[in-house]
Amino acid sequence: MSRLGISDTTYKKLHHISTATLTTQLLKRGFRNTFVVGLTPLRPDLRMVGRAFTLRYVPIREDLDKAVDYDNNSNVQRLAVEAVEAGDVLMIDARSNVNAASFGHILATRILQRGAHGLVTDGGLRDTPAIQQLDLPTYIRQPHATTSVTVHHPADMNVPIGCGEVYVQAGDIVVGDAEGVVVMPVAAADSVAEDGYEQELLETFLQQQVAEGASIKGVYPPNDAMLEAYQHWRDTQDTIE
Amino acid sequence: MSRLGISDTTYKKLHHISTATLTTQLLKRGFRNTFVVGLTPLRPDLRMVGRAFTLRYVPIREDLDKAVDYDNNSNVQRLAVEAVEAGDVLMIDARSNVNAASFGHILATRILQRGAHGLVTDGGLRDTPAIQQLDLPTYIRQPHATTSVTVHHPADMNVPIGCGEVYVQAGDIVVGDAEGVVVMPVAAADSVAEDGYEQELLETFLQQQVAEGASIKGVYPPNDAMLEAYQHWRDTQDTIE
Amino acid sequence: MSRLGISDTTYKKLHHISTATLTTQLLKRGFRNTFVVGLTPLRPDLRMVGRAFTLRYVPIREDLDKAVDYDNNSNVQRLAVEAVEAGDVLMIDARSNVNAASFGHILATRILQRGAHGLVTDGGLRDTPAIQQLDLPTYIRQPHATTSVTVHHPADMNVPIGCGEVYVQAGDIVVGDAEGVVVMPVAAADSVAEDGYEQELLETFLQQQVAEGASIKGVYPPNDAMLEAYQHWRDTQDTIE
Amino acid sequence: MSRLGISDTTYKKLHHISTATLTTQLLKRGFRNTFVVGLTPLRPDLRMVGRAFTLRYVPIREDLDKAVDYDNNSNVQRLAVEAVEAGDVLMIDARSNVNAASFGHILATRILQRGAHGLVTDGGLRDTPAIQQLDLPTYIRQPHATTSVTVHHPADMNVPIGCGEVYVQAGDIVVGDAEGVVVMPVAAADSVAEDGYEQELLETFLQQQVAEGASIKGVYPPNDAMLEAYQHWRDTQDTIE
Amino acid sequence: MSRLGISDTTYKKLHHISTATLTTQLLKRGFRNTFVVGLTPLRPDLRMVGRAFTLRYVPIREDLDKAVDYDNNSNVQRLAVEAVEAGDVLMIDARSNVNAASFGHILATRILQRGAHGLVTDGGLRDTPAIQQLDLPTYIRQPHATTSVTVHHPADMNVPIGCGEVYVQAGDIVVGDAEGVVVMPVAAADSVAEDGYEQELLETFLQQQVAEGASIKGVYPPNDAMLEAYQHWRDTQDTIE
Amino acid sequence: MSRLGISDTTYKKLHHISTATLTTQLLKRGFRNTFVVGLTPLRPDLRMVGRAFTLRYVPIREDLDKAVDYDNNSNVQRLAVEAVEAGDVLMIDARSNVNAASFGHILATRILQRGAHGLVTDGGLRDTPAIQQLDLPTYIRQPHATTSVTVHHPADMNVPIGCGEVYVQAGDIVVGDAEGVVVMPVAAADSVAEDGYEQELLETFLQQQVAEGASIKGVYPPNDAMLEAYQHWRDTQDTIE
Repeated sequence: MSRLGISDTTYKKLHHISTATLTTQLLKRGFRNTFVVGLTPLRPDLRMVGRAFTLRYVPIREDLDKAVDYDNNSNVQRLAVEAVEAGDVLMIDARSNVNAASFGHILATRILQRGAHGLVTDGGLRDTPAIQQLDLPTYIRQPHATTSVTVHHPADMNVPIGCGEVYVQAGDIVVGDAEGVVVMPVAAADSVAEDGYEQELLETFLQQQVAEGASIKGVYPPNDAMLEAYQHWRDTQDTIE
Repeated sequence: MSRLGISDTTYKKLHHISTATLTTQLLKRGFRNTFVVGLTPLRPDLRMVGRAFTLRYVPIREDLDKAVDYDNNSNVQRLAVEAVEAGDVLMIDARSNVNAASFGHILATRILQRGAHGLVTDGGLRDTPAIQQLDLPTYIRQPHATTSVTVHHPADMNVPIGCGEVYVQAGDIVVGDAEGVVVMPVAAADSVAEDGYEQELLETFLQQQVAEGASIKGVYPPNDAMLEAYQHWRDTQDTIE
Repeated sequence: MSRLGISDTTYKKLHHISTATLTTQLLKRGFRNTFVVGLTPLRPDLRMVGRAFTLRYVPIREDLDKAVDYDNNSNVQRLAVEAVEAGDVLMIDARSNVNAASFGHILATRILQRGAHGLVTDGGLRDTPAIQQLDLPTYIRQPHATTSVTVHHPADMNVPIGCGEVYVQAGDIVVGDAEGVVVMPVAAADSVAEDGYEQELLETFLQQQVAEGASIKGVYPPNDAMLEAYQHWRDTQDTIE
Repeated sequence: MSRLGISDTTYKKLHHISTATLTTQLLKRGFRNTFVVGLTPLRPDLRMVGRAFTLRYVPIREDLDKAVDYDNNSNVQRLAVEAVEAGDVLMIDARSNVNAASFGHILATRILQRGAHGLVTDGGLRDTPAIQQLDLPTYIRQPHATTSVTVHHPADMNVPIGCGEVYVQAGDIVVGDAEGVVVMPVAAADSVAEDGYEQELLETFLQQQVAEGASIKGVYPPNDAMLEAYQHWRDTQDTIE
Repeated sequence: MSRLGISDTTYKKLHHISTATLTTQLLKRGFRNTFVVGLTPLRPDLRMVGRAFTLRYVPIREDLDKAVDYDNNSNVQRLAVEAVEAGDVLMIDARSNVNAASFGHILATRILQRGAHGLVTDGGLRDTPAIQQLDLPTYIRQPHATTSVTVHHPADMNVPIGCGEVYVQAGDIVVGDAEGVVVMPVAAADSVAEDGYEQELLETFLQQQVAEGASIKGVYPPNDAMLEAYQHWRDTQDTIE
Repeated sequence: MSRLGISDTTYKKLHHISTATLTTQLLKRGFRNTFVVGLTPLRPDLRMVGRAFTLRYVPIREDLDKAVDYDNNSNVQRLAVEAVEAGDVLMIDARSNVNAASFGHILATRILQRGAHGLVTDGGLRDTPAIQQLDLPTYIRQPHATTSVTVHHPADMNVPIGCGEVYVQAGDIVVGDAEGVVVMPVAAADSVAEDGYEQELLETFLQQQVAEGASIKGVYPPNDAMLEAYQHWRDTQDTIE
């Protein structure tokens, strides 16, 4: 995905690396806080790899949001929906407030049509049963049926935000699996994917040893003999290169 | 359901309107706080439409609840179970306390037999694996195996309560889907159902346009041309009238 | 399971008694706080019966945990993994902190190989999609992809701990079902299992009466006639004796 | 205070017994949960002894509370204010919700004029700087400037309530000091006061021994020699009998 | 204060109107959510009236904040400090995160020197004992000794923010007393001050009637006779006009 | 204090360095998490410097704690009280549970007599009004009148603990001021004190410049001219060397 600013190989590998492995690679590079706490995937069967498009909400005040209807020409949420491009993951900073929704079904359908690769909010979501029918990886804190306008005012887009106390800026690489969502700087993505892919292969091998009865001693972490055995095994695998 | 105080048409329509749409209709009528936050459906496959029957718990004190056994002639929880009528949804105010259950399997079986349309508690529930086998729409905050008597004393029934910080009084109309539970005054129900049903039809149509590639501009909200197209489509639908 | 210090009959019965019934039997013996609040089963289809093996984490400090790698000869978490024996349930005191994982896939595989009967943590867990593939009953507060080393330092094993504000000591009997986890002193287990099994049989019968239309009056709690009918029914059942 | 249903001696003693000692005496009688968690005294310099007058709030709904103004003839909060009698402590069940006030300055002035002995709310309070000028023992969870009508609807008075997860019914004896608030059944009050007063005298003596350098061994709990020394000391004290 | 965009009379009156009265006037104008929940004043003896200057923090990421030292030419927090003007109240959006400070002593001294009228953060504050010595009205959620750089990255200034779930934009009028902080649109300030000042005078009079023994009936709300008595009293008062 | 394992100079300096400065020095040495969040000092007028003595509580179970009375020969809490030595700060791990006390007046008196330098608990405390009369620096999460035995079982002493999610081991140096409590490894204390003392002197000087009207530019952080001015000023100060 050229819009993502990463190589095709990285893009492919990121679909096979768990968020657990990614956080470890990021930690090795000094990034300690990359996993969004407390989200639930609506579609745990889908993997998500995309480019962060941020949308920031602030608390509503009655002189800002007069009615339930929205104006597609001025409402920042609506402008964001029509600005999302192919490969983007819409990341919403809803201040972890779950007393209303932060997004709904028709808008989710629209961003999917525009090529969005995912939707992540640290707040509520409405129309969750319908959104689960879309092939859009979606992560939320909690369902809430009520429209966002009762609690949230969309303030701006593509500024740096906090999403579930994780820093996100436009262009970051966002990866999701059934465990949750990891955010990383695009500059780190190629290297993280390369090393993470190798870590995942190695740990797949090591886990097989343990599943067959080996102790973790000498295996996890592996000693030289184990690493050598791994290299033989790795040579037989069909891998992404 | 005549006991519910709503028309048969309303009753039918409420089975097809999402809780998201209902909260929007209620908001248009000035009701801002109608969705119970933080509940999980045990049976997301079932829709729930019923009349609120309220049951209020207060904290236990040792001079009130002497033993684990219950007396069906004096215990307010037990009296409530045998007072529930066909069409009722038992709504429990458990002060959002999840340190014990607030209801269990045999009592849930009994209210289902009496014709209850649902069970909603803002507290814990025990025997959840067994209750999931009943065809009773059930919404809880969290499972907890321990009997309610360790934390809760049933105080009275059919007084106004708060359930998950939403006001509920006996006779209110309660609707649930896989997203959660909405509570509304019975006086508003016919009007809400009528407008909500139309909103749902319209939004189904609009979502289809967007799913087929339309921008939200001119569609959501719809302009005159879109509304006219919708009217043609609506005339072809098999609707509840 | 002789290692558990309970009879074979007790062991069998505990697989058929719900955690709800167990908490009631424990409450009758004066134990009020035996159910771990707020856990989710990764494998609600599996029952868990085992002996508590405790592992205590404290907050990390940078002079203790230098790197992401672990030493199997000194790291208490690793020592615990290789000390778990057949029949054990590894119970982790993670101070209910969900800002990192407290355990992962390869170690979970290893304790399963060593015969562990379950894994319970009041903190986070990483690699949850992979761990769900193991036939290991696992209960967690929340998934978190990040390695435990960012938040937790393993302090000691088999000391008394709090797990989700429930007391656990090595040797306690731990039982889990789809509702959650109950902890009990081994000294109480045989008696609890015997009475709990009878309670469960009786309540199965009573629930059937109610499911067939009986009022709870005279049934729950049962009067003498109902108890007599139960005895006839019980004589026809294939029970564990 | 005859209205309180306790003896004059009890009334006097309760002004000298700490809430800590009272909870211990109540625990000895089987009452485990008698201290309201999380309150702050506005006037830690005042002691409070009175009779519980309960006021129950439920969440607001827009068809109930039309405006900011109150009708003294129908609003339950206002009716309660003019029903409070000398010796009463107004105990408000605000569901521990601190997103608005639950009471204010003019009403607090009025209940003080009517002879109220205190005001306790598990919610917010407005006009706190002004209320601190009244000689009315007041305990709150948090200040909040906004009128209660935005969040609370007064439902009924003198029904059993939960205040900060402690059971309270009209007529209970309520005692407050700088540490917080204890609630007890009136039937227990005379006995609790008698034993609590003796406990307080004994512990005053024991604390003096420890303050002068004694070990807690033989002192706390006291051995026979220490108890004998205490009896001599007690005979010299000017006590309430 | 001309910078505040309000009249001198309004400015004076706002120093005499309680935050409780202000929220009522704002509620009458449709503003429901204007009081910042959960703050503590470090200087309850000072009143605060000023113009909002907003500063927004996002979670830190290790590629943004390399060290503990700050660069006064690029760090947004530092730029904000030197951009604050006379009459401003610095309002910090720290996402209600109290795991670090959001401001400290030297910077607080600097904004006081620049003429700041106050400092409000929904996060932590360090050097609180020293800051309490400054004549700067300061409101915080909690003290925390650790520098903000461990948790917060200053993102931008004078954008709309949420502070304790209340909307704030640059130029809003911010008022604080010992109860807490109220935020209002500048367009509403003159009218709110005028009506609030009258409300405060009236309620002062009514409270005196109640303090002298009057029932709330006929007084609160006042009947015509009481309003007439009030007018006579008001004519004798030395008021701000 | 030789028992503390630090020099006399360090001991003296630590009485003059704020917890804010200490966390900065610790952060420079890689220690990120050293301040105990959420505590309130009962005696903000006292400084605390001492050596950590840890006491660990686990949840109570009814087979462990039979009665309210304590046995000084077996109860770990009581053994700890008589094991505390001069210079110790008793640090209690109460799992941040505030539903009961974790310590009381007579025991606090005893540890003060034994030479304790402070008392820190991440749980509740009873007898707080009386304990405030002791010259013992005391930090708590919240007052609670009820004896610890209802919630806590003392498990062991001088093992590593978490206190408010900060790691503490016996022998650590603990410092408290009106802002809160910092914990550091004894091995770091001399160096932290030396550098912290210099930082505090420098910042005192810089704050004075700012208080007299200087911009933070060139001052905070200081440029060479400012550092030179500081050196002249420092030479005139009466410092601890």
